[in-house]
Amino acid sequence: VDADHTAERLATAVDGDLAARLRFVLEADALKRIDRRSSITGGTRLENSAEHSWHLALMALVLAPYARGSIDVGRVVAMVLVHDLVEIDAGDTFVYDDAARTAKEAAERVAADRLFGMYPRADALRACWEEFEAAETADARFARALDRLQPLLLNHANRGEPWRRHGITADRVRAVNRVIDAASQDLWNAAQSLIDDAVAQGWLTEHAEPEEHA
Amino acid sequence: VDADHTAERLATAVDGDLAARLRFVLEADALKRIDRRSSITGGTRLENSAEHSWHLALMALVLAPYARGSIDVGRVVAMVLVHDLVEIDAGDTFVYDDAARTAKEAAERVAADRLFGMYPRADALRACWEEFEAAETADARFARALDRLQPLLLNHANRGEPWRRHGITADRVRAVNRVIDAASQDLWNAAQSLIDDAVAQGWLTEHAEPEEHA
Repeated sequence: VDADHTAERLATAVDGDLAARLRFVLEADALKRIDRRSSITGGTRLENSAEHSWHLALMALVLAPYARGSIDVGRVVAMVLVHDLVEIDAGDTFVYDDAARTAKEAAERVAADRLFGMYPRADALRACWEEFEAAETADARFARALDRLQPLLLNHANRGEPWRRHGITADRVRAVNRVIDAASQDLWNAAQSLIDDAVAQGWLTEHAEPEEHA
Repeated sequence: VDADHTAERLATAVDGDLAARLRFVLEADALKRIDRRSSITGGTRLENSAEHSWHLALMALVLAPYARGSIDVGRVVAMVLVHDLVEIDAGDTFVYDDAARTAKEAAERVAADRLFGMYPRADALRACWEEFEAAETADARFARALDRLQPLLLNHANRGEPWRRHGITADRVRAVNRVIDAASQDLWNAAQSLIDDAVAQGWLTEHAEPEEHA
């Protein structure tokens, strides 16, 4: 890490547990260097995974009343704050890249072992990450719905980028985002209206174009 | 906003309260465009206020056991997630720019009126911001300590930038960061060790150089 000298200095000055936690904090800074496929509003640059995680946490506070059933907002916030940390080692995987998504699982588990092994009580954060990945609890389903809805908002705001650049069709956008419905019918309605509008505006095509040589 | 067309589309598709909350979420995206004075680790670019807010929230989860007395981590996290939103209108103010810090208060209050007026229940987020600003509760003091410690970690990792660029001396760094002590003696010890080391390394000078013409 570029911050090794800082972590080493701290290790001589404070107790071992605190030094290890501060090393983890410094290591986590690298998430700011992981670019995603969506651009920030205004379209001037790609979004990174750290600011994306902040946006999801804020959305959890703002949109919690629209969850189906009862959720624990604090747990949803903790989940989205840590859900992308493994990308520091494993990189970001485009949600529409099916081959990469299959391959990433092992790499993310190795990354989790390293990052959440940096201090003894990091197992509490690892449990948040595992719960998010398993997608079995209401809290995890809501966190995952936000993780889908947020790029949909950005991509509509940016008039279909990066869908257009990557040739993503409306049926794939619907398939990927349908999980929002399990967490919130209202948010799924919002998502559908943006997808339908993107098609109407010509920012998304309903189906893939036939191959030119066909 | 660049996302106005998205907010307008949503206003025709979902109920008014949800549409207003989603407009707030889109508006908040602009915090990703507010640059701070510290660079991310590696020093390749300035940090922005959105990813900074994420980093503070993660630090709250990781460093809570080192708070003096008892704190409510969920409230600290909510506070740091919203503490910089007013910068969307008022801009970031360098902690060592005393004149700008005095002037910013009125601008930030106008910004708070606009942003936290975007949907009726945003007053809960405004209350978090007000509590952070007032610095009177244990939760707010811990949130503010993280807001000081985080750039100190980055600036040490970047070998004294931006202190060197802006001619900030060690006595000013100590004065600005001393508030950490009210929230956590352990974190203040960590901060002091980094300041002392920065002086020893020549990244911070103990006192201002005498004026050349003096």
